[in-house]
Amino acid sequence: MVDFSKQIQVYQKSVEMALDFWLPKPSVDPKNLHEAMRYSVLAEGKRIRPILLYATGQAFDVELNNLNGPACAVEIIHAYSLIHDDLPSMDNDDLRRGKPTCHKAFGEATAILAGDALQTLAFQILASDPEIKTNNAQRLKMIETLALASGSNGMAGGQAIDLASVGIKLNIEELENMHSHKTGALIRASAEMGALSAKHINSELFACISDYAKYIGIAFQIKDDILDIESDTSTLGKPQGSDLALNKPTYPNLLGLDGSKEMANKLHQKAIKCLDVFDEKAKMLREIANYIINRSK
Amino acid sequence: MVDFSKQIQVYQKSVEMALDFWLPKPSVDPKNLHEAMRYSVLAEGKRIRPILLYATGQAFDVELNNLNGPACAVEIIHAYSLIHDDLPSMDNDDLRRGKPTCHKAFGEATAILAGDALQTLAFQILASDPEIKTNNAQRLKMIETLALASGSNGMAGGQAIDLASVGIKLNIEELENMHSHKTGALIRASAEMGALSAKHINSELFACISDYAKYIGIAFQIKDDILDIESDTSTLGKPQGSDLALNKPTYPNLLGLDGSKEMANKLHQKAIKCLDVFDEKAKMLREIANYIINRSK
Repeated sequence: MVDFSKQIQVYQKSVEMALDFWLPKPSVDPKNLHEAMRYSVLAEGKRIRPILLYATGQAFDVELNNLNGPACAVEIIHAYSLIHDDLPSMDNDDLRRGKPTCHKAFGEATAILAGDALQTLAFQILASDPEIKTNNAQRLKMIETLALASGSNGMAGGQAIDLASVGIKLNIEELENMHSHKTGALIRASAEMGALSAKHINSELFACISDYAKYIGIAFQIKDDILDIESDTSTLGKPQGSDLALNKPTYPNLLGLDGSKEMANKLHQKAIKCLDVFDEKAKMLREIANYIINRSK
Repeated sequence: MVDFSKQIQVYQKSVEMALDFWLPKPSVDPKNLHEAMRYSVLAEGKRIRPILLYATGQAFDVELNNLNGPACAVEIIHAYSLIHDDLPSMDNDDLRRGKPTCHKAFGEATAILAGDALQTLAFQILASDPEIKTNNAQRLKMIETLALASGSNGMAGGQAIDLASVGIKLNIEELENMHSHKTGALIRASAEMGALSAKHINSELFACISDYAKYIGIAFQIKDDILDIESDTSTLGKPQGSDLALNKPTYPNLLGLDGSKEMANKLHQKAIKCLDVFDEKAKMLREIANYIINRSK
C-alpha cells in the first residue's frame, strides 16, 4: 500500500472530482445558487468524512469508484451544515476555511437556499448514483443512516443543543452528548456508509467499525478544542480562540488542556482496539485514528 | 366511493396521524427544536400534496396505509420550505396559516434548524418506512424524485429565482419557469410518488399522471395569485394582497384577472384530459382538479 499521506491525497482527489461532477454547473440557472453551492463545497477542506468512508469501504474490499457517491453525500451534508451554522442568527461567522462564509459572499437568503439544496443533493446522489454497487436494501439503509445522523436526533439536533448551551456550564456528559450529535453522528455515519457499500456485510465487523468511528469522532472534537487554544488563526483558517471568545463549552474548559489530551489519547487507543478484528486492509483506518490525534489543523 | 369532501377528510386525517407518528415527540430533546418542527408541520394546512399523492396511489390500487409515508414526506418537505421562505432574509413573513411564522414563535436559529431537520426527516421516512410496499428499486426512485423536485433544479431553485425576480418584470415564460420550479415540481413529484408506490407501474400511465400533475400545478399557482387579489386576509390566513405589496410578479399582473382565470380553466381541461386513460379509480384525481380551480383559500 502507498504511504498514508499519498493515500489521503488519492481519497481527497477522488471525492473532489466526484463533487465537481455532482454539483450543478455554475453556468446552469439559477446560477447564483449553484455558484454558492460550489463555493462552499469545493472550498479547501480536510475531507475527513469522505476519507473515513473510503478507508472503511476499502477495509471491506469496496472499489474506490463505488464509494465516490456516498463520499460526496457525507461531505455535502457537512458543507451544508457549515453554511447554516455560520449564519448571523447561528454562530455569525465571517470566515470559514480562510474565505468569507457563504452568506458573506452571496447574501443570507442564497446561503440558506444553498444549504437546503445541498442537503437535498446528498440524498439524490445516494438514491441515484449508478456507481453504488451494493444491493438496494443496503443502499436504502445508507440513506436512512445518513438521515438519522443528520436530523434532529443527529447533527441538526446537536447544533440546537450547542446554541442553547452558549454561556451555560455543561458537565462532561452534557458536552459529550452535544458533540455526539453535532459532529459525532455524521462521522460515525461516514464509516457505517463505507461498510454498507460492501456487497455483503458481517454484522459483527459492522459493529466494530461503528464503535471505532464513535471513538474517533469524540477524539476529533477534543482535538478541535485543543487546536482552538494551541493553534493560530492562519493555520486554522478561522479566528484562533473563537470558541473561548464565545464562551462556548469545551473539553479544555472542563478537563484542562492536559486532561483533554489524555482523554483524546485514551479514545485513540480504544478506537485502534476496535480494529483488532480486521487485517491489514484496515491499515488506513488505523492511520486515520493517528492523524486525528496528531493533526495541526 | 364516498363523496369528495369526505374522502379529502380521510386523506387529511390519514396524513395528520402519520405526521404525528413520524415527527419527534416534543418531550424528546432537543425539545425546542422538536416543538418547532411539530408547530409548523401540524399547523392547519390544506395538505394538497398528500391528497394528490393518496388519490394517485389509489388510482393505481395502492392501499391508503401504504401511502402514509410518502404523503408525510411531501408534506414535510413543503412545511420545511415554508419555514425557510418566511425567514427575515427571504420573504420576511410574520403570519402563516393564521399563526405566527416559525421564526416569530421560536426564533430564527431554531426555525432554520427545524426546516433543516424536517427535510432530513422526509428522506428518512422514505428510506425506512416499513409500510411502503413497493419494491426497493421504486422506493429509491421515489427518493430520487423527491430530491430532484426539492433541490436546486426544483423547489429551492424556484425560491432563488423568485427572490431574484422581486421588482423585475418577468414575461409569462419566465413566470411559468419560476413557478414550475417553486411549487410545480413538488406537486408533480407528489403524484409521481403516489404512482411509484404501486407494485407495478405502466410507463404510459405514469406519464399521463405526471402531465396531469404538471397542469394542475400551474393551475394551482394561478389560482393562488387570483385569491391573493380576490380573497381576504382572514380567509387566506396571510395578508391579502401581500404579493402585490411586495411587487412580486403574478399571473394577474401579466394576463389580467380574466386572462388568468381563462388560463387556469384551460389548464384544468388539459389536466382532466390526461386522465382519459384511467377508469373511475381516477375519480378523486378529477375532483382534485376541480377543487384546485374552485377553492376559496
